Amino acid sequence: MENCIFCKIIAGEIPSATVYEDDDVKAILDVNPAARGHVIVLPKKHASDVFSIPDEDLSKAICVAKKIAIAVKEAYKCDGVNILQNNGEAAGQTVFHLHIHVIPRFEGDTISVKWKQGEMPADLDVIADEIKACMK
Amino acid sequence: MENCIFCKIIAGEIPSATVYEDDDVKAILDVNPAARGHVIVLPKKHASDVFSIPDEDLSKAICVAKKIAIAVKEAYKCDGVNILQNNGEAAGQTVFHLHIHVIPRFEGDTISVKWKQGEMPADLDVIADEIKACMK
Repeated sequence: MENCIFCKIIAGEIPSATVYEDDDVKAILDVNPAARGHVIVLPKKHASDVFSIPDEDLSKAICVAKKIAIAVKEAYKCDGVNILQNNGEAAGQTVFHLHIHVIPRFEGDTISVKWKQGEMPADLDVIADEIKACMK
Repeated sequence: MENCIFCKIIAGEIPSATVYEDDDVKAILDVNPAARGHVIVLPKKHASDVFSIPDEDLSKAICVAKKIAIAVKEAYKCDGVNILQNNGEAAGQTVFHLHIHVIPRFEGDTISVKWKQGEMPADLDVIADEIKACMK
């Protein structure tokens, strides 16, 4: 897609530090990393977010994210790994070409991936029905 | 797996508010939600984390997470959705049966999924090589 920085990286028009590439997926280092070894996984076919990506492309990308998670765990002996995919500015998405973050984590690091756990809703069944009514 | 709370939920031994179920995947409401409509997606076959799950099970789970993301966006008209999968206590994992969080997000909510962006490392190529050396 024109003017998509990730499409340009995939096409080789903008350089990147590539850690993995096949016909469908490219994985590169995040240039503003949360931690050493922070990788982003890009499906080569443009899709702006999870709402529009075909299942097949999403599956290929998540399986590469798994490979990367295993590799960074071995490379950096990290204590954990977050796999994170943000959709929409409100969710922290800044580039509108779907990408999956793979982030090495260490005990006591300052990365924040958390939320205040809510009380158990009294109307769990209502909520489940609200969502089921919208399942395609 | 014995003593796994999610295996017990999948087996129906512990009740849950189910929003989706097929032969391989079950999606339930998080009982301590970050937001209304916070769902967790569970592969039925036990795997503790992304390091050990077969590609096929991971692919099925992420495609259900996509379905749920589309549904919660429609149900709650949220501004965004985080898809998050934590591996290891250091990454925020609390139940050691792989699960994928699908979290509706709204402008100005208090959910924190962020990090201080680092400077671009001077040794990007070295980092890429460190990871590639560990890719299976």
